[in-house]
This record gives sequence, structure tokens and C-alpha cells, in this order.
Amino acid sequence: MAKTIICSVGTSASKKLGIHPKKLEDWVNQQDNLEDAAQKMFQSFASFEPTDENLRDNLSAEIHSLVRIGIDVSDRVLLFASETPDGHCCALAVKHYLEQYWPRTIVEVEPINGLQVNDASRFRNQGVVEFIKKALAAIDAYGNVILNPTGGYKALVPYTVLLGMIKGVKCDYIFEQSTSLLELPPLPLEFNKSQFEAYKDLFEDIERDSAVSKSKWEQRVPYEERPWFEPLVEISGDNVTLSAVGFLFLDIIRKPTALVPFLSQKAIKEIFKDLAPLDDCDPFRFLLRVSQSDQAFQQAVHLNQDSGLYWLKPGRTTDRYLVSKEGWRLLVWRAIREDQIGAQYPAKVVVNPDRDRSNYAPFMRMEYVN
Amino acid sequence: MAKTIICSVGTSASKKLGIHPKKLEDWVNQQDNLEDAAQKMFQSFASFEPTDENLRDNLSAEIHSLVRIGIDVSDRVLLFASETPDGHCCALAVKHYLEQYWPRTIVEVEPINGLQVNDASRFRNQGVVEFIKKALAAIDAYGNVILNPTGGYKALVPYTVLLGMIKGVKCDYIFEQSTSLLELPPLPLEFNKSQFEAYKDLFEDIERDSAVSKSKWEQRVPYEERPWFEPLVEISGDNVTLSAVGFLFLDIIRKPTALVPFLSQKAIKEIFKDLAPLDDCDPFRFLLRVSQSDQAFQQAVHLNQDSGLYWLKPGRTTDRYLVSKEGWRLLVWRAIREDQIGAQYPAKVVVNPDRDRSNYAPFMRMEYVN
Repeated sequence: MAKTIICSVGTSASKKLGIHPKKLEDWVNQQDNLEDAAQKMFQSFASFEPTDENLRDNLSAEIHSLVRIGIDVSDRVLLFASETPDGHCCALAVKHYLEQYWPRTIVEVEPINGLQVNDASRFRNQGVVEFIKKALAAIDAYGNVILNPTGGYKALVPYTVLLGMIKGVKCDYIFEQSTSLLELPPLPLEFNKSQFEAYKDLFEDIERDSAVSKSKWEQRVPYEERPWFEPLVEISGDNVTLSAVGFLFLDIIRKPTALVPFLSQKAIKEIFKDLAPLDDCDPFRFLLRVSQSDQAFQQAVHLNQDSGLYWLKPGRTTDRYLVSKEGWRLLVWRAIREDQIGAQYPAKVVVNPDRDRSNYAPFMRMEYVN
Repeated sequence: MAKTIICSVGTSASKKLGIHPKKLEDWVNQQDNLEDAAQKMFQSFASFEPTDENLRDNLSAEIHSLVRIGIDVSDRVLLFASETPDGHCCALAVKHYLEQYWPRTIVEVEPINGLQVNDASRFRNQGVVEFIKKALAAIDAYGNVILNPTGGYKALVPYTVLLGMIKGVKCDYIFEQSTSLLELPPLPLEFNKSQFEAYKDLFEDIERDSAVSKSKWEQRVPYEERPWFEPLVEISGDNVTLSAVGFLFLDIIRKPTALVPFLSQKAIKEIFKDLAPLDDCDPFRFLLRVSQSDQAFQQAVHLNQDSGLYWLKPGRTTDRYLVSKEGWRLLVWRAIREDQIGAQYPAKVVVNPDRDRSNYAPFMRMEYVN
């Protein structure tokens, strides 16, 4: 399957020029133009074929790691560069090399505004935010993404890792000086979406207007909840803006990769009393499975009601579930036994989600202990 | 407040020796002994006082970041070094420097077995595991910990960040070439403890015997749940062992930093019907607050029953909660109104948790939507 590798880029592509990293920006500026500088840099390592020895000693960290990850003709490589001329130049040189040895692989260079090392506050408030936004856009657009933080600033690694965990994308990188690839699979971490969602409109205000005033923030978010939100916003003077992590959380709320099942009061009774004791029913595993993949959900749909409700059927068992999707939640309204209610159950068990909701609420998250 | 800084150590303390990092191990081995090498290295930068300029240009990444974090006489610095002689030597040189300029600060050097760059599999299976275990022990022992991944292997950064997020400890590090400290506050991330706990005994078997057989693993963990557990174990041949992340999760289950409230079926009715509509009651915020800090819990305890149950009282309001602690869960059995039941409510509302449990179960996690 074609994959997209998001690769942060540092300055190791310059190593064969023999210029000290601190002098590299000057060198780039002394060339006729950026493309000329990139060509000169590329020529300094163009003849080193991607052998084990050259990967380790003569080629850049990005090329080394991309070869270990395994790039293929149908793949796409996104080289996320710093905004500095030297970072941009190194990314272009890496692109030329990849295009020479893997001519059909798509390689794109993206300089990221704010990604630089002279101003830490701009790094955090602009560079990391832009990096996360561009990476999110790529994950949405291409699917099957691998994050590769081998090259580039060490200070960016925490955010790359976090992005991978929250979006369920793996990170592959090379162990320094080693030739083996380390893989950090997406960890099963989550955040309290209910707590975040309670202020979603406020975050959308920030997103639209770039910032809200501190007084508006404090008026809205109670004092004792503010520590929870601290990593999600940047407060500077009277302005409250979203942090890179805040943008990441907002993205997840809007485009959930999996749903979280919530059970109505009726469904709790039905599931725990009527269904769970049956030998061939596992309502929890079934509801988890259909929540975690849209494909599994579609396969389980037995009837699609006009009201936005669906009847789900696990297979040859007798359990049937009346559910609806609400943002990142899967609401389970009813959980019935077809052998008790009969084949006409959709006509017999009727729910009007708007009118009857208060009879079913609160919907409790499906996590329990007996 | 006295703090403990856990600081991974690289080789930048050697920069004033003018030896290429790849030749550093040879140099260390050529000295009379490790302490002699460390003294020589220390002397190469001992006279540079910790001024802004020296921190940036002449002193090591660890010293630079520690000074920016702010070390104080009552603090403790744990220098986690690689297992290599050069890494160990650099850590000792940094220790000598810190002891010269901050003579009352406690500085300890801990070489970590398996922390090296020649064998990626040993890095992951031993180095990272030892690093996480030692860091967890320090967090338990000292409280008020800061993680500082400025120095040391870039490949260790993802694990340091993860440790910080899961244990609620902040990471402070220095932006390369910059003089500003970046802070990564502990993010509000969690993992599905219920899912992990279902196999806690199996993980404890692995911990006790170092490994279990692959057949035992596959017999116990159903096929469709295995992807969830993939990052938590290492499977090599017929052996299943715990990964660094697996150890981290096991630690959290055993020593939760916060409890998660679960409501009995009776408590759900009482809270949503009787208490939530009252103007001056906020049962959800109250239960969250007592779950998140032991101090808040102790302050709210009104009566401690012999049965392991506690009556909690928020303040001057009428709501009272009968709760128990069960591992990382706070079980809420009852939620009553004192103005309805009367001042003698503890005598009137009696629960025998062992005998009556099935009347209260299932306890549902307190996360809901109306």
C-alpha cells in the first residue's frame, strides 16, 4: 500500500560540504540563490549510493531513515523544513537525492513558518502549531502515514510523538549512529473528550478570531478547571490563543478516528440483565468493535432509520442494537433480544430521538466494573 | 519547594576537550581510570562560570538546561547516563561542575544498563525499560520532579515525554542553540485502565518470571484485543515480555495519581434525578475533585465506616456520598440528600459492600451526555 512519510529535516545533508552548522546559513546566503545552493549541496553527496556504509557515514539523517523505513515508487515523502535558508536548502538537496535514486516517488518540500531556533516563543506559538496543522492535513489527505522525526530539531520530537499517539499514527526513527529503525507504535492513549467538548464553541471562537480576551476565557472556564486546560492554550498578556496541542485536540473532536460508546439508561438495563448473561453474546466487545472502525459499523448495519438511528446486528446472534452517531460518540439507545421481541422488532421498538431523549438520558460511557 | 530534576546525559560535556564524539570512548579508556578521565574532562570547563555566554558556548547541554530550570541548594539532580564509559565519564564531569558551583545541591550519577547506541533491540528492551523504572522510582521517592531530556540520546526523548504525560510530570528542556527553556506541561492524557486491568495478573506473571510463553499470551488475550496491547509487550521468538510502556501502565494501575469515579446504578438515579437539579449542588465536579487529590478526599470525609466505605460531604450543602476506593477506581454507592433522609442518614442508609454488591453493580464510569 502506498504510504506517506512525514519527515522533519535538519541540516545533516550539509555534512559533506565541511561547513560548520553555525556557518551554514551564511554559506547558503552567499550562493546565487537557494536552488543554486541546494544543487551545490546535493552534488556534495549525489554520488554516494544508498549503501549501508554511505547511509551511516556520508548521507543525511533523513535519507538514512527513509531508506530504512523503505521507500517505494508509489510513496510520497513530505520534507518539513525549518523556515531558515539553511534548513530549506538541506530539504531541497535531500529532495534532489531522493528524486535521483527513486525517480517515481513524490517528494515535496514544505518550509514551516516559525520553525527556527532563535525565538523560543515563536517556535512554540507558530512553528509547532504550523507543523501540527500541516501534518494533520497530510494525515487527512493521504491516510497510511508514517511520522519520521529522525532529522530536524530535537525540540520538535515531543510534538511529533504526541501527534502520532493522538492520531494513531506510528513514528519510525533511527537510533543515532545505529542502522536499525526504532518504531514507536501508536499508543492507546486518549484524552477526556467530554471535558474538552464542553468548551468547544470557545475554542472555535479562538480559531476564528485567532484569540479571545483573557477576561472572556476566565468568565467562561471555572477556576478549578483551568489547570486541565493549561497545556491547550497560550496566555500572553490579555490574549488567549490555542496551543499546538489545543489544535490537535480540536481536530480529534471534529474528525474522530474512533467513536466512544455511551449507553442509555434503558440500554444499560437491557445489556447487563438480558444480553450479557447469554452464552453467545458479547455486547461490549461488539459495540467496541463497531465504534472503532467505520467499516465494521457499516457491516453491522441491519436497518437505517430515517431518524438518524440504526439497528445493528452482530451476526447470527439474537442481540440487536439501536444506535446513533453524535460527533465522536456512539449513542446506544436500546439493546434488545430478537428471540423475545420477534422479527418485527423495528416496528415494535420505536424511538423518536428528539422527543424521547430525556427518557433515555443520561447516556453513560460504556466503561464499568461489576 | 525542593525539587528533583531527572536529567538524561549525553556527551556534550566533552566539547572543550576537542575530541570527536566518536573517539571519546577510546580517550576515556586511555586514561588511568574513569574518575581520572572525569577529572580531566571537568578541568577542561571548570573555570567557565555559568554565565549566559558560557552556558551557550562552553558548558554542556545538561549544565545549560539545569541552570535555566534553576537549581537551588535544596534540590536533587539525578544524572541518568548511558552504560558506555564516555557517557558515564561525561555525567561524572557534570556532577563535579555542579558540586563546585552549587555545593549543597545533591547530585547523583546513575548509569543505565542497556542505554547505548550499538544495539537497538537492547536499547528498547533493556535501556528504555531501566530508564523508565529508575525514573518511576525517583518520582515515587521524591515527588516534585522535573524531567529534563535536553542532553542524551534523541531516541530517548519520546519515552521521556510519554513518562511525563502519564505520570503528570512536566518536561523542561532547552531549545537547541537557544537560551530559553521550553516547557511541556503534563498533558491530560489517559489510557483505558479497564482494558489493561483485565489482564493485570498476566502482566504480573511476566514481571515476576521476566516473560511468559507466546502460547500462554495468545490463549489468554483474544485475537481482536491484541493490537491494543501491541505497544505494551515485546514478542521475540516464543517469549512475551513487557515493554517500557507496559511497565509504565502497570505502575499507573498500581499507584494511581488520581482516581476515576464510577457510579452504582442507584447512585446514577440519585445523582441525576435528586441532586443535579439542586441549585447549590454539583455532584460531578465534587466527585471529580475528591478523585483527583487525596487531600481533597480526606477533607471531604465525614464518616469512615468499618466496611471500607466513607461518607463524603462537600461543605454546607445537603448532598452526601457513600463511596469506597478500589484500586484506581472511586466507587460511588449512594448519593443522598440529608434534608430528605435526616441527620441520622448513616444509620438509615446502610450498605454491606460484600453482600449487596450485585444490587449496585454495574458501576459505570462517571462520564455522560444528556
